[in-house]
Amino acid sequence: MRYPRYTDLAQGLPSTVPFVGPETQERARGREFNARLGANESGFGPSPAAIRAIGEAARGAWMYGDPEMHDLRRALGSHLGVAPEAVMPGEGIDGLLGYLARLLVAPGDAVVTSDGAYPTFNFHVAGYGGVLHKVPYRDDAEDPAALVAKAAEVGAKMVYLANPDNPMGTFHGADALAEMRAALPEGCLLVLDEAYVEFAPEDDLLELDPSDEGILRLRTFSKAYGLAGLRVGYAVGHPELIDAFNKIRNHFGLGRVAQAGALAALADTAHLARVQGEVEAAKRRIGRIAKANGLTPLPSATNFVTLDCHGGVTRAKALVAELGKRGVFVRMPFAAPQDRCIRISAAPEAELSVFERVLPEALAAIG
Amino acid sequence: MRYPRYTDLAQGLPSTVPFVGPETQERARGREFNARLGANESGFGPSPAAIRAIGEAARGAWMYGDPEMHDLRRALGSHLGVAPEAVMPGEGIDGLLGYLARLLVAPGDAVVTSDGAYPTFNFHVAGYGGVLHKVPYRDDAEDPAALVAKAAEVGAKMVYLANPDNPMGTFHGADALAEMRAALPEGCLLVLDEAYVEFAPEDDLLELDPSDEGILRLRTFSKAYGLAGLRVGYAVGHPELIDAFNKIRNHFGLGRVAQAGALAALADTAHLARVQGEVEAAKRRIGRIAKANGLTPLPSATNFVTLDCHGGVTRAKALVAELGKRGVFVRMPFAAPQDRCIRISAAPEAELSVFERVLPEALAAIG
Repeated sequence: MRYPRYTDLAQGLPSTVPFVGPETQERARGREFNARLGANESGFGPSPAAIRAIGEAARGAWMYGDPEMHDLRRALGSHLGVAPEAVMPGEGIDGLLGYLARLLVAPGDAVVTSDGAYPTFNFHVAGYGGVLHKVPYRDDAEDPAALVAKAAEVGAKMVYLANPDNPMGTFHGADALAEMRAALPEGCLLVLDEAYVEFAPEDDLLELDPSDEGILRLRTFSKAYGLAGLRVGYAVGHPELIDAFNKIRNHFGLGRVAQAGALAALADTAHLARVQGEVEAAKRRIGRIAKANGLTPLPSATNFVTLDCHGGVTRAKALVAELGKRGVFVRMPFAAPQDRCIRISAAPEAELSVFERVLPEALAAIG
Repeated sequence: MRYPRYTDLAQGLPSTVPFVGPETQERARGREFNARLGANESGFGPSPAAIRAIGEAARGAWMYGDPEMHDLRRALGSHLGVAPEAVMPGEGIDGLLGYLARLLVAPGDAVVTSDGAYPTFNFHVAGYGGVLHKVPYRDDAEDPAALVAKAAEVGAKMVYLANPDNPMGTFHGADALAEMRAALPEGCLLVLDEAYVEFAPEDDLLELDPSDEGILRLRTFSKAYGLAGLRVGYAVGHPELIDAFNKIRNHFGLGRVAQAGALAALADTAHLARVQGEVEAAKRRIGRIAKANGLTPLPSATNFVTLDCHGGVTRAKALVAELGKRGVFVRMPFAAPQDRCIRISAAPEAELSVFERVLPEALAAIG
């Protein structure tokens, strides 16, 4: 008899990673990158108050975190103008997407997303045996009408939309989202991944409405708050759905250190505003560098700029590789036709200067 | 149609927590506990080097952690004398138990544990639809022979044993474990939870043997290393089983801050030795306090002492409540006949003095 006896589902899954980390590439090339522009991390760093809070929490790290995350849920509720019962913090959006898939997806269940959208969502859906149905991007944006139509066609339990979108940086305003919500087939949950929401037009966001059972919003401290390495995200939605996470989540999963860091980061609104300003300036700079080298920056409502390299996937892949050889870590979209592009994270001046210096060399190398 | 459409499995699960945190009780009573002796946390704190490492990692917390956890796996492998491929760090033993249940347990699958053993294991097994079969403790210890017999009887995929045991503190030596392993039914995985292993007799531990597909060992930074609030545990086992975690785990789940703290804690062997010494002294002290008050301390191979209160569950529950009223947080076993006891975590002098002062009052209050 085979040891151990995996479930049929687990037995059939590939051993995979949604993303190869830059550290893996650094080990392969034998030295660190000079510019880390591939994971849309915030090189502007976390709030100094959050850094202090993490350091202080370290002394008390012998204590488990509050499994109810009382203070953090209250602070987030207050920040968002919703009840704490409408908020569920967790181990990053990745962790929360895993819990959500577990709650909703049984083998064979239909789920809809865009071809080339966030692969970790797909990883979790497939991991629970779900069947992914993908619709193409339209004009470099996810296509709400096509997503809704496909969801109706296949009887999807969930439809995923990242807004603003990763990897293209595009954004749908409040009206488009409200229209999508209204058109959703009955019983289909809209999973709205808002990892980049702090960079989107604030006056054009779909209002948060936890009385709506049909939408779950996901946000994070990994991007604008610069705490990707602390692992804190949160879901906002109907209190009944939010409470369902308690059936399955790792109750002590968000530790004392993570909760303290997130609380302090949330309170430092001045730091967030500073980062938002720096990101806008960095995106303009990336745009100028791109244009000076014959690449076209796409409009971005995120903390990165996607650059059209005016070729196919082969050209974009070669450029990513050549940039990597020159110490610049970037990534690119997975699916055509978006994979004609590369994606550059907003970053401080020093790293963008490295990018500016090596981009012409990398382009020359691919000819 | 109901929103959202949960899986049948999720729909049937209770909204539950395996443990109520002390913070919940503190909010209910309106003030903090004076002595936190209920969760077997290490009041002796984390290594100062780990505290520094966490504080330094906080500055770089804008970066995701290495999803391959390369350095931590190597360091753990070197520490344990096994290959890095035999080690999988994760979000605490709790998180790893969840992944393990997901890999092995399909609805209806049989799993064996002891009645009154770690409830979070049960939570995860039930969460994937597994059927738990429980055998009683024997002489206040988990009963390997009974566990093996039950596993054979029900065709279990997994059998759980905490060694040293929580909540009773008892320990089975290398020979007993080897005998249990040899008697395991074919295809049944022994899940050996060694959260407290650093407090057990070092020369009587079952040797680590990652060539054995039949055992998975689980260890943690939450107890002896004093990092419960950082959420780092690790599994040690056959590289094929270890690799299977990659099919389903949250690859970026162990953040940069957690990895840095664990690495530094592991390297500070002097701090670990100091804590081990302090814990032994604290356990002797708890024993003296107990005896002076007519309670009987059980032998302990952990960082807590279980005290026989010489009554039934009602008396033990009342004592836990009375101690709580007096600012001392303790917990007690869940199942009879162990639930005649209360469980006191080893802690620094100041907290044990509080315990010493209020125990006679609490005993007087319950009569």
